[in-house]
Formats: sequence, C-alpha cells, structure tokens
Amino acid sequence: MTAQQTGAVAGPVLVIGAGLIGTSIALALVRAGVEVHLRDVDPEQLATAIARGAGSAAPVDAPTLVAVAVPPRFAADVLAAASQEFPTSTITDVTSVKGPVLKRALARGADPARLVGGHPMAGREVSGAAGARKDLFDDRLWILTSTDETGVAHQGRARQLATTCGAVPVLMSAAEHDQAVALVSHTPQVLSSALAAQLLPAHEQSIAVAGQGLRDMTRIAASDSGLWVDILTQNAGPVSVVLTGVIHELQEVLHALQELANGDIDHDEIIDATLKAGAKGRSRIPGKHGNPDLDFAEVAVMVEDKPGELARLFVAAGEARINLEDVRIEHVLGRPSGLVELSVRPETAEPLVAALTARGFDVRGQA
Amino acid sequence: MTAQQTGAVAGPVLVIGAGLIGTSIALALVRAGVEVHLRDVDPEQLATAIARGAGSAAPVDAPTLVAVAVPPRFAADVLAAASQEFPTSTITDVTSVKGPVLKRALARGADPARLVGGHPMAGREVSGAAGARKDLFDDRLWILTSTDETGVAHQGRARQLATTCGAVPVLMSAAEHDQAVALVSHTPQVLSSALAAQLLPAHEQSIAVAGQGLRDMTRIAASDSGLWVDILTQNAGPVSVVLTGVIHELQEVLHALQELANGDIDHDEIIDATLKAGAKGRSRIPGKHGNPDLDFAEVAVMVEDKPGELARLFVAAGEARINLEDVRIEHVLGRPSGLVELSVRPETAEPLVAALTARGFDVRGQA
Repeated sequence: MTAQQTGAVAGPVLVIGAGLIGTSIALALVRAGVEVHLRDVDPEQLATAIARGAGSAAPVDAPTLVAVAVPPRFAADVLAAASQEFPTSTITDVTSVKGPVLKRALARGADPARLVGGHPMAGREVSGAAGARKDLFDDRLWILTSTDETGVAHQGRARQLATTCGAVPVLMSAAEHDQAVALVSHTPQVLSSALAAQLLPAHEQSIAVAGQGLRDMTRIAASDSGLWVDILTQNAGPVSVVLTGVIHELQEVLHALQELANGDIDHDEIIDATLKAGAKGRSRIPGKHGNPDLDFAEVAVMVEDKPGELARLFVAAGEARINLEDVRIEHVLGRPSGLVELSVRPETAEPLVAALTARGFDVRGQA
Repeated sequence: MTAQQTGAVAGPVLVIGAGLIGTSIALALVRAGVEVHLRDVDPEQLATAIARGAGSAAPVDAPTLVAVAVPPRFAADVLAAASQEFPTSTITDVTSVKGPVLKRALARGADPARLVGGHPMAGREVSGAAGARKDLFDDRLWILTSTDETGVAHQGRARQLATTCGAVPVLMSAAEHDQAVALVSHTPQVLSSALAAQLLPAHEQSIAVAGQGLRDMTRIAASDSGLWVDILTQNAGPVSVVLTGVIHELQEVLHALQELANGDIDHDEIIDATLKAGAKGRSRIPGKHGNPDLDFAEVAVMVEDKPGELARLFVAAGEARINLEDVRIEHVLGRPSGLVELSVRPETAEPLVAALTARGFDVRGQA
C-alpha cells in the first residue's frame, strides 16, 4: 500500500519537535507509507523517535509539509523560521491556542499563503517520544485554522496530514477555535482550580464529607499548573469573555442566596433559572460517539471490592453480548464494596439487568 | 441474633415517611431485629414499604425513637409534631440541611432535649419505597448534629440508629454540617450549573470539541432543579459564604487575564497562584477508602469498543489477583475504542502492566 493509493499526504514531511505529539505524527505518517524526516533540539528525544521507527534524522531539502510540534511558547518563532527555510512547503503546527501563535508567526515573517494552524485533540496520559503512538490521533478531532490568505492547496495538504494520521479534520477560524477551547476546556480549568482552592483552609472533617460531585468538579484542578499558566496566558482574551459570563451568573445566584438568607423568600426564581439553564446546557454536550441524540441507559450494580468481582460483572455482560458504553465506580468512604454504574444502549438495559440478576448480582436500579 | 446481642438500637422505632430513605432505614432496622413501625401520608408508599418487609403499619404508643424522613420542606413541622405526640421519644430526621430545619422545629415546639439532627450520606440512584435497600447506609457517613441542650441518652440513641443501619456516625454542630455540605456539595452544584449554562448560547461546533473535563465539570448540572432549589434555599447562608470566596478567586483570575489580554505580561503570577492553590486543595480530598495518604497508581489501556473486551481486561486483572480500585473510560469522539484508566494500589501497578502486556493488551502508560 503506497501513500498515493491510500490518499495519504505526499511526502517528504518534516516534523520539527520529537515529543509526544511530533513523534506520534511521524509514526502515523510512517504507518501510511509517507517519507518522514524529524528534527529536534534535544538529540536524545530525536534518537528515541528515530529508534522507534518514526522516520529519518537526515536533512530534507524541500518537504511538502512542515509540522511544527514544539512547546507553545516556541511555536510562533519556529513556524516563521520554517516558512523562511522552506519557501514552498505547507507550514502547520499543533499548538492548543491558535490566534496569538499564528499572529506572531506572521509578524515574524511566516508566509500567510502557506500557513495553516492545527490542533489535534489527542491524548495526554504520557509525554515525550517514548510515549508516542502511531494511533494517537485515530478518530480524534484535528482542528485546522486557515486565514483568508491561506492557499487552498496548502489547506488541503494540512487536511491530508490530519486524515493520514487517522484524525477527523474540522475547519474553523483561529478565533472560533480559541473561543471554543476557552468555553469547553480553559474556563472549566479555572473554575475547577478556584473551587479546589476553597478546600485549602477547610476543616478536615468538612472535606471528609466530600462525595463524587466534588471529586468530579476538582479532578482537573490536579493538572500541571505550569502548562496551564501558558495556555491561559495565551488564550487570555477568549477565556476572559467566558469567565465574565460565569461570574455574572454566579453573582446573580449569590445575590439571590443573600436575599434568601435574609428571609426574602422570593429570590429562589433566579436560582431555579440558573439550575434549569445549566441542565439544558449540559444536555447539549454530545454523547460518547458524538451523537447528541443517543442517550444511554444506566444500570447500577453493587459490587464487592475484591479481586475478580469486576471481572465477574464484565464477563456476565460480555456473555450476554451486551456492550458497556461507560463504567462509573462510586467511591464509598471506608467501604469494601462499591456501586458500579454501567451505561448501555437503552434497548440492552433490560437484558443486562436480567443477565446480571440471573448471575446473582445486586442490581440496584435502572434509569 | 437479637437486637440486644448486636448492640442495635432498642425498639420500637417509628419511621415517618416511607420513601427511599425512610423505608431503607426501616429495612436496615428490621435486618437487625428491631421492632419498626412506619407511617406515611401516601398509603401506596406505605403499602409498598410494608410489603417489602419494612415493619408494621400499626400505630405505636411509645417508640424509643422517631425518625422523620419526609421531604425537606415538611421536616421541621413533622419533627415538632412528633416531639409533641411522643413526649419521651428521641426525635431525629434525615434532612440534608440541618441548622434551619432544627431551628424551625424548635420554634414550633420540638423538645430541644430530645431533638438530634441526622443526615445519612447515602444513595440517590433510585427513589421511593420500591427502591429502598436494607444496606443503603452500610459504611456510609451518617452525620449527627446535637445542640447543647440535647440529652446524652438521646444523642446516644440517635448514634445507635446510625450504627444499627450500618453507617458510620459523625458528630458535628448543625452549623459545621451546613458549612461542610455548602463547601463540598452545594457550591459545586452552583458552579456546575453556572458553567453548563454558558453552553446554552454556544455554537454546536464549539460544544463538539468538548472533552472529559467539561463532561465531569457539568455532570451534576443535570440534577433535578426542584430538589436543588429547596436545598440551596435552605442552606443559603453557608453557600453564600463559600460562593463569595469562589467568586473572589475567579475575579482575581479574570482581572489578571484581562491585563494579560492587554499585553501586560506580569499578571500570570496570580493565575499560577490560583492553579497551585487548586492543586493543593484537590490533594486534600481523601482517597476511595477515606485514606488521604493512599495515592493510587494509574495504568492506561487502549481497549476495543466491542462486547467482551472490558471483560477480557478485568479477567486478566482478576487472574493476576490485582484489585482495581477505580476504572475510568475516556470518551473518544466517533471512535469504536476507548482509553481505560485503571487505578490500583501502587505496588500492584507493575504486576498489572506485566499481566496485561502478556495477554496482548495495548498498555499506554503508567503514572
């Protein structure tokens, strides 16, 4: 299978930056039969990537495309330098904020006709060339941001890069991208951190009362603060807009709560409105497979907390030929057992309950 | 096994309100050999509870203890009425806000010496007598709130009610309780709703970019708004205090972001401080078994999304005698496979990776 036959991007492709994302792009391209060259300021990262089969460290004269996969704060400079070094190549990147990076790259001399911003929405559980995977982008979104000046051929080639890596390309303007991630990723990070910060001065006894809600709301507060300062700094404008909206909503609720605390009972309408708007907003988030119409049914099972019990549960589901779409284990304080919530397609909920009950499982409910 | 032998609360106990919590209390008491009587304004709920073996619907003259398990807005009146009807009984409730309920109950004539507030921290996946379980409270926290006037014997009896139901009693003042749940439950609910409300006017394309972070942050925004208006209204004071702290933190971040957006680069220190405080606060939340010192190791595995694959994974862990403390399945847009994160005790992470790798699993990383 050659690159041409599969519709893969034509090589040679130069990947600058042999970290997790850059090396994964290289591996995905090699998988598709594309000629790949790699470059990195760190010879160890580069050697690791090459040893893993991610392409060649040899120089390349005229790559069709240069993919810049360096840390965000270096991206603009490297994009501009690559544009000048390779005057005919399509130039793209993988940075998680797009507007400021592209603007700075252009200000530093990148060719607007050949510049296409990119942001593959992919894994984060490992880092570095050693953690790279050829299938990291399979079926992931890969956002592409062009300007009016981007040439159609260059945009098409960046799109081919994404599809060759197995991803689903989505075209947006840089502003749309930055607003979208401000809404769905960056502002939630700020909220999670601000909430978790309230736990610092709290009595241990209060925190001991915490349930799954607080755990979920503060999970991303554990993220690397250095990386997030970079991201929030770069996307300061769009995050400010969303955060202003959140603060306004919270202030309305706060005002209503203060009036209620003072005995003015009429203010629960504002609280009700926020709660209802939240429930509606939440329902707009698409399901697991990007299909907002598909609601899964939930089956709750109480499972003993000992080796093999979860296995027994999943074997039972597998034997009944029922696919589990999601699994959620509730944490129960000090308790050697746990409530497991299984998400399944609605039509398989009853067969699942029957199968589990027949095998002696303690099925708690179905919603 | 009689009630005396097991240290169970001495009966007869009267449970007023045969919903999920009331019927579960009754079933747990019957399990321990305690004589239980039930009362409910809804004859159907009562009949269901009795049919499930939750005790007797016959009147009782002098219960040792009356457990009031009615909806929050009726709790104070029912507590006061029960205190007057049964002048020697210990009187307790199960309402999720304590200060205002107890204050109103006292104002309406409840005897302060016999009144003990209660809040079992238990299940919510089903409702009504039909969903009740005798083990609903096993190893759950059951918060008890006494006043200075509460008699020691009555407090002890309320504590015995909790332990007889299998729960772990925790003594707090009503104010401490209400502050704790404002911090770990009620304010997170407001934040989740306010964030989710921002999704209402957003472009569908923006929401399509949403990942696990936004899903986790907005999960509780889907909760029943009617119930939460009641809870927030009743706990308006303590929630106001926590919410004021959150808004203050968010405003500091917003101000810094606005300065950054205007090109003033020095303001990232404030953002860094919030992110670091959040990470520290998050780390105060106790682990699965209430042990804050026990950090679990994470093992990430890419699993195909077809019936039996999760079973194969858990069977492999079970065969290796490794207990999974938690399971997390990442949702991948439009993709028939998923990243499964397994939490295990640190010393079992390496054996787990070895066992899974030996069985051909695609282990992605270990942290």
